[in-house]
Amino acid sequence: MKAPIAPKQKEINICGWQAVSTLFARHPTEVRRLFFDAPTGKRAGEMCRLLAQNRKVYRQVEPAELEKIAGTVHHGGIVAVIGERPLKKVTREVLAGWAKDRAPLLLLDRVSNANNVGAIVRTAAFFGVKAVIVADHPQQALPGEAAHRVAEGGMEFVEFYRVPALPEFCAELKRTHFLLGTSLSGNQLSPAQVKERGLPRPPAIILGNEEKGIAPALAAQCDRLLKIPGADTVESLNVSAAAAVLCWEFVGKR
Amino acid sequence: MKAPIAPKQKEINICGWQAVSTLFARHPTEVRRLFFDAPTGKRAGEMCRLLAQNRKVYRQVEPAELEKIAGTVHHGGIVAVIGERPLKKVTREVLAGWAKDRAPLLLLDRVSNANNVGAIVRTAAFFGVKAVIVADHPQQALPGEAAHRVAEGGMEFVEFYRVPALPEFCAELKRTHFLLGTSLSGNQLSPAQVKERGLPRPPAIILGNEEKGIAPALAAQCDRLLKIPGADTVESLNVSAAAAVLCWEFVGKR
Repeated sequence: MKAPIAPKQKEINICGWQAVSTLFARHPTEVRRLFFDAPTGKRAGEMCRLLAQNRKVYRQVEPAELEKIAGTVHHGGIVAVIGERPLKKVTREVLAGWAKDRAPLLLLDRVSNANNVGAIVRTAAFFGVKAVIVADHPQQALPGEAAHRVAEGGMEFVEFYRVPALPEFCAELKRTHFLLGTSLSGNQLSPAQVKERGLPRPPAIILGNEEKGIAPALAAQCDRLLKIPGADTVESLNVSAAAAVLCWEFVGKR
Repeated sequence: MKAPIAPKQKEINICGWQAVSTLFARHPTEVRRLFFDAPTGKRAGEMCRLLAQNRKVYRQVEPAELEKIAGTVHHGGIVAVIGERPLKKVTREVLAGWAKDRAPLLLLDRVSNANNVGAIVRTAAFFGVKAVIVADHPQQALPGEAAHRVAEGGMEFVEFYRVPALPEFCAELKRTHFLLGTSLSGNQLSPAQVKERGLPRPPAIILGNEEKGIAPALAAQCDRLLKIPGADTVESLNVSAAAAVLCWEFVGKR
């Protein structure tokens, strides 16, 4: 009888100088292969030395080949190949760790545009959010190549977790975190008013789908729904702009 | 002798439901022609009626043709053609009007990515900024098709002005506005600290190039340089995330 063949781990391309250099700074051993064009190669000496030490492939290629390897024109002159990072499970221990560290969290409810996920992760990383939680939902964009590129290195500072469903997860998370959701309907408090009233527990900020916002069952679990007040012009902020305002207000200023 | 032929005004395509429907709500007479695919056409009845009244062309087309008309796959099912909007000049009267209205302003110093310009305009419009000022500089992205699409209607609420050079313009603007620039270097105040010290005049927020930030000659004109404090992870916020934080802090909450 033949031994079962282990399925090959899927690989993803990390593109762009900022994303690749941060990857090398934070998780250098994850890099399996590195490709770059001539101008970018001039800055990549240190990366190449490290790969050479570990007997891994690095290579300068023509622009056309780099585009083919990257699968996109938006490669920024450099592409690092890593194994796809599986989304983590939220165990009892993980929950206990977040509670102990009073870790601010970010939950995404079907944010469907990968560029938005990348932009949100860059902002979340900047302000010190360490974990992003998403649900098993076909509309949710996952941290793939586009999101990594737009995050400009932010992906190396946050960990992605996946839960079966956000409402059930939030019923649990509420014990240790204060759940802040956004809503465009109703007469909600502004972020400033929410802050004035105080947060009894560390914040978990919940961002919803670009069109539909947060699902009603999830909104029902929130400790507080809030609305960013605007000037009655465009209907809403982009979700990544809302993330910037809320991370600044509830994570960054603490 | 022939009469001189007037140069034909350049046209631009406004793409996507949000951008087009806001265009019709705010500046309907600007629309010269309208194209849409079958599913989007179902929602476009009111727009078509208006165009019919004014003897203008509207037409449902096949997806391939719509992509050709739009010049992009990102047309969102609908394309309105308008004449290009010239950037306005800042006259004495304009300056006096801003001073009288205490209008918050946004200045862009070589923000080079059109998607960033669009995202910034959406956020600025949301918070009630009425004017965006850019300089005559080849690196500055102008409000073209990509920026309109990403702004999702925000372009219909802000006016774009062009000045020969920002430092000279700021020397003038300082008399009526408090110039807030961002800086990654030095030991700058945070936005919250700037606010605590008070703004003696309405704010003019200055955002810089994605790589280089604000030019030194422009930074020298600022009444206050500030730095959004982060968690020592990624180097900086994306310029549109910084715009969201600063517009929220200095325009939105007033």
